[in-house]
Amino acid sequence: MRVAIVGATGAVGHELLKVLEGSSLRFDELLLFASPRSAGSTLMFRNQPLTVQATPDGAIDADVILASAGGSISKALAPAWVAGGAVVIDNSSAFRYDPEVPLVVPEVNGDAALTHRGIIANPNCTTAIAVVAVAPIHRQYGVKRMIVSTYQATSGAGAKGMDELLEQTRVELDGGQAQASVFAHPIPFNVIPHIDAFQDNGYTKEEMKVAWETRKIIGDDSLQISCTAVRIPTLRTHSEAITLELERPANPQAVRDLLAASAGVEVRDDPAGKLYPMPLTASGKYDVEVGRIRESLVFPGGIDLFVSGDQLLKGAALNAVQIAEYLQQKGALKARQRA
Amino acid sequence: MRVAIVGATGAVGHELLKVLEGSSLRFDELLLFASPRSAGSTLMFRNQPLTVQATPDGAIDADVILASAGGSISKALAPAWVAGGAVVIDNSSAFRYDPEVPLVVPEVNGDAALTHRGIIANPNCTTAIAVVAVAPIHRQYGVKRMIVSTYQATSGAGAKGMDELLEQTRVELDGGQAQASVFAHPIPFNVIPHIDAFQDNGYTKEEMKVAWETRKIIGDDSLQISCTAVRIPTLRTHSEAITLELERPANPQAVRDLLAASAGVEVRDDPAGKLYPMPLTASGKYDVEVGRIRESLVFPGGIDLFVSGDQLLKGAALNAVQIAEYLQQKGALKARQRA
Repeated sequence: MRVAIVGATGAVGHELLKVLEGSSLRFDELLLFASPRSAGSTLMFRNQPLTVQATPDGAIDADVILASAGGSISKALAPAWVAGGAVVIDNSSAFRYDPEVPLVVPEVNGDAALTHRGIIANPNCTTAIAVVAVAPIHRQYGVKRMIVSTYQATSGAGAKGMDELLEQTRVELDGGQAQASVFAHPIPFNVIPHIDAFQDNGYTKEEMKVAWETRKIIGDDSLQISCTAVRIPTLRTHSEAITLELERPANPQAVRDLLAASAGVEVRDDPAGKLYPMPLTASGKYDVEVGRIRESLVFPGGIDLFVSGDQLLKGAALNAVQIAEYLQQKGALKARQRA
Repeated sequence: MRVAIVGATGAVGHELLKVLEGSSLRFDELLLFASPRSAGSTLMFRNQPLTVQATPDGAIDADVILASAGGSISKALAPAWVAGGAVVIDNSSAFRYDPEVPLVVPEVNGDAALTHRGIIANPNCTTAIAVVAVAPIHRQYGVKRMIVSTYQATSGAGAKGMDELLEQTRVELDGGQAQASVFAHPIPFNVIPHIDAFQDNGYTKEEMKVAWETRKIIGDDSLQISCTAVRIPTLRTHSEAITLELERPANPQAVRDLLAASAGVEVRDDPAGKLYPMPLTASGKYDVEVGRIRESLVFPGGIDLFVSGDQLLKGAALNAVQIAEYLQQKGALKARQRA
């Protein structure tokens, strides 16, 4: 079987290579594609140098394509990739709201992946991190309202976002004035409540994605969800403060036990031991850290919690590879005969 | 009239001196007190050097004492200061929950200050910043539920908090491993959902302060309030994402107009112009920036908003001086006869 990565040189592409190295996915060959600018460069995979090729305009001879080169490239090329016989696992937002395209977090709705017609969408990073913690609670207690405030890392804007934070922080520490080019405003020692474009309702697209995508993944359109998405000066890993109103009252210890037994989650919740989710400990980790689990003070029987998840992993690369692994485990990935 | 600052050399003391310089408060003399370690040092006030004295164990011969040296000093000494005839405006949490001590934000409940019996409490910084934006909305529309997630600056832990962020960020940029001494964990490029001590209900004291103090200042015990308080790697100015369920439906433009006409608030809410509250623009400002005003997606007719306020100013020094100004305007501050 042949796997291709489109967008191999970006921040998510980098993580895709690392995750594939340790993955249980069985494949014979890995093809790497990126923009013509990166063509000819080499990336290491399992101690072998692989040459990056320019992404072609049409079909790619691969069985699985992990696409992470942005929405416009996915939108333009995915139909040709599917026509060429590949299963496309797309990390962009291009197809997430298409009713014919499953939007999948394997721990939550893996079976939806089996209904694909060539394209499977990977959710927005903020959604993927929240939903692994919230879905088990929803199944057990029924979430009615979900209020999310995010603490999002600069790498959500790619490697260039991290570079801007590091470079401009140095400028500020040296007494200079930080400048912004990736972000709308200088990010060092600042907070920017603006991620992605503003919509007519006053919410940003990033905030609406959390509402739209959580409902689609959980499969419940009655869920009321609101989000405030905020960029902060961290490098990696998004955190989220989440308040849940529940149909059936929960208590914190029962939720802790439930989540400890749930896939993709690490309960890190011992205030006395100063253990709670943080980017410092969640970065590089496959599981999403969940802690600060306590009864809501505004919704009796509801739950407040705090999550930190590596948005380049569970929020992107890891989830994409897990989708491919799931398909293969279910016998739903077939290698084509090649000459 | 004689004004004294206790805790003159701390981060809030520094701001108290600056705010008093431009204040309309009429007074003849300013006395500065701090720990014995700082005694003998001088601080400039209106181009005059003033010598810092060691805080005495008993009464201070001043008409107004602005106390900002921590809860244990206030608790131990404020009774003696009051017995000595001073009005004490206390920035610590020592007396905030005493039913006989008014807790005052002048724009919201200035008249409560007139009922004092010697001590007036200054609220927690996070509360003071939220309440100037929320109180006018409460008066007009009736707040039922209030959900707050905070983005709190390191200077909330004093000047040493800022120093730790700056020093340890440099360590990280130079390839080292940041260490924590002021905070529970390294703060550079990290997020710590832990401010002040954990309570039995799983909330921190900082989070409960927002609930307790907002209710007391607004004067409505039926208000349901929940908070997640999070330390982030910024230097100054706390931001807060606030969701409000309202008794009577509001629309965002009406709330914008209402807040634009409210004291202590600067409406900064033009997404198309990339204008919203940020520490970068709110730091050093007397008014609290309020923006991202939009209809709640979980409470029909409710409001979501985002605030950024300089917690050393409105959250501490400025509010304390405004209380003194208010008392003087109302003829409730009297200078004693001195030999």
